[in-house]
Amino acid sequence: MPKIVECVPNFSEGRDKEKIQRIIKVFDKHKDIKLINYEADSDYNRTVVTLIGNPDKMLDALMDLTEVCLQEIDLNNHSGEHARMGAIDVIPFIPISNIKMKECVKYSEILAEKIADKFSIPCFLYAEAAKKADREKLPNIRKGEFEGMKEKIKDPNWKPDFGPSKRHETFGSLAIGARDFLIAYNIDIDTDDEKITNRFARAIRQSSGGFQYVQAGPVYLEKRGHTQVTMNILNYKKNPIYRIFETVKMEAKRYHYNVPSAEIVGLIPKDALIRSLRYYYGVNNLEFDKEMSITEVVKGCKKYLKLRDFDAEKIIDYFL
Amino acid sequence: MPKIVECVPNFSEGRDKEKIQRIIKVFDKHKDIKLINYEADSDYNRTVVTLIGNPDKMLDALMDLTEVCLQEIDLNNHSGEHARMGAIDVIPFIPISNIKMKECVKYSEILAEKIADKFSIPCFLYAEAAKKADREKLPNIRKGEFEGMKEKIKDPNWKPDFGPSKRHETFGSLAIGARDFLIAYNIDIDTDDEKITNRFARAIRQSSGGFQYVQAGPVYLEKRGHTQVTMNILNYKKNPIYRIFETVKMEAKRYHYNVPSAEIVGLIPKDALIRSLRYYYGVNNLEFDKEMSITEVVKGCKKYLKLRDFDAEKIIDYFL
Repeated sequence: MPKIVECVPNFSEGRDKEKIQRIIKVFDKHKDIKLINYEADSDYNRTVVTLIGNPDKMLDALMDLTEVCLQEIDLNNHSGEHARMGAIDVIPFIPISNIKMKECVKYSEILAEKIADKFSIPCFLYAEAAKKADREKLPNIRKGEFEGMKEKIKDPNWKPDFGPSKRHETFGSLAIGARDFLIAYNIDIDTDDEKITNRFARAIRQSSGGFQYVQAGPVYLEKRGHTQVTMNILNYKKNPIYRIFETVKMEAKRYHYNVPSAEIVGLIPKDALIRSLRYYYGVNNLEFDKEMSITEVVKGCKKYLKLRDFDAEKIIDYFL
Repeated sequence: MPKIVECVPNFSEGRDKEKIQRIIKVFDKHKDIKLINYEADSDYNRTVVTLIGNPDKMLDALMDLTEVCLQEIDLNNHSGEHARMGAIDVIPFIPISNIKMKECVKYSEILAEKIADKFSIPCFLYAEAAKKADREKLPNIRKGEFEGMKEKIKDPNWKPDFGPSKRHETFGSLAIGARDFLIAYNIDIDTDDEKITNRFARAIRQSSGGFQYVQAGPVYLEKRGHTQVTMNILNYKKNPIYRIFETVKMEAKRYHYNVPSAEIVGLIPKDALIRSLRYYYGVNNLEFDKEMSITEVVKGCKKYLKLRDFDAEKIIDYFL
């Protein structure tokens, strides 16, 4: 079984479509790496790229991406709503298949060293790859952004893990790390009352006493005319989707509201869905995973997790 | 409305019944303080006393308790399964009615200062009253116990908050602090399989990804012939009982097990029960608290939370 990682480089251009095309084109020659999608956000002025493939081939593709971003992007002329410190701002390695977190940490170190050596770009290791507690959270590293990093990087406490203690004049600096797969998941509530929906968010999110690996808040969807509990699930093995979904339904019941549907933003591993379907099917055998085709998983998720706008292309295993 | 606190002093004698009687007798002359109960554990060689009343009167009662424990208990001749560092080992102040946590912190400081001044007993402030992060958790302070404290207390990092940097020769040292009401709550599972029950514990406890203020584990009750998820709820406002109960029921469903009953160990505030009954009654008005008599609360808790061995005397407000 081949090793598969996902990488989600974020680069700092989300407006100039031609420039984005020139950058994305770099993946054309990396046939072994699958470009799942890229989403450019013009408010953020930032593009998020989703790649999956063999981790060694991934290193080559990311070196080329760095080179083209170095040519195309000058952070001195960049502004946008999203905080950023580099032309490529962040690259996480995410274990998908037959690879451990430890190996993803190793790959993030290798990439950081290669980028620092070849391009003299300072690289910080974050998340699971962090060597110091205050580098675990990306916003901590990025605080001050491109502009503030000019001075910050001279502080011995902010010496980069690889590369010079000097901000690259146009590229800035880069965070590379390893983390678990993060699921972006939203639960629809049939009310336009954000206050009520916030109660449901508080019931499930870590910061208010809820589940340890859930970040959540309320949001009103103007176009759809209802609210959502919008969330990130940072560890779907410890906080499976069905438990979050059922807990929100439990809370909504008290206020006599319905939970008609939910949605996955971006990709989700089949394993995360199987863990929830096992619950609804009342089964606990390990063969269940093999028995369930992707088509059947999609069917089960629509029926039990009430996932809307959901199809096989949302499931990462579909691309493997 | 009068201010009411609960205090739960733990003293280091759980075997010698006459000695325990002589110690407990000290509360006879403190008519304003209600002695709810005291539980002597001979394995632990420790007695846990539950008191409620006015905080100023509580200070007087606790000074007298300290005096009698100083006379009756010599830690040099004490052994038991429970870790301990003092003749009275710990005294928490717990806000019950018309009193804020901040005031309970203040009362714990006043008591610590009085005990240190009068008896030359070193006192450490812990939990919400802690002045340093490594004193928040009692086991951290108590590490080394009576015996180890002889040297530990000379370390500047372990200088007591009040009193001499010298262990009292017979009494040892004492931790005083303030904390929220802690609910000891167990959910019965109709299986004797501790492994399965552990899965339910993992779903709800903080350390495995569950609710932030829940500590839980599985236990097999030999006399009753079934398992329990046994737990402490450290903040019942953020992690209400009904949500924990319903989540365990949700998890048990998957394995086709029933959750026939549950129990409260010790006392519980009416407020904690009302918060759960509101859920089952589907109401959200603040008047509900006033409408519900203690008798009705007991009835509702038996019906919806399936509390067994439960009556009005489990509810702290019954004694107010």
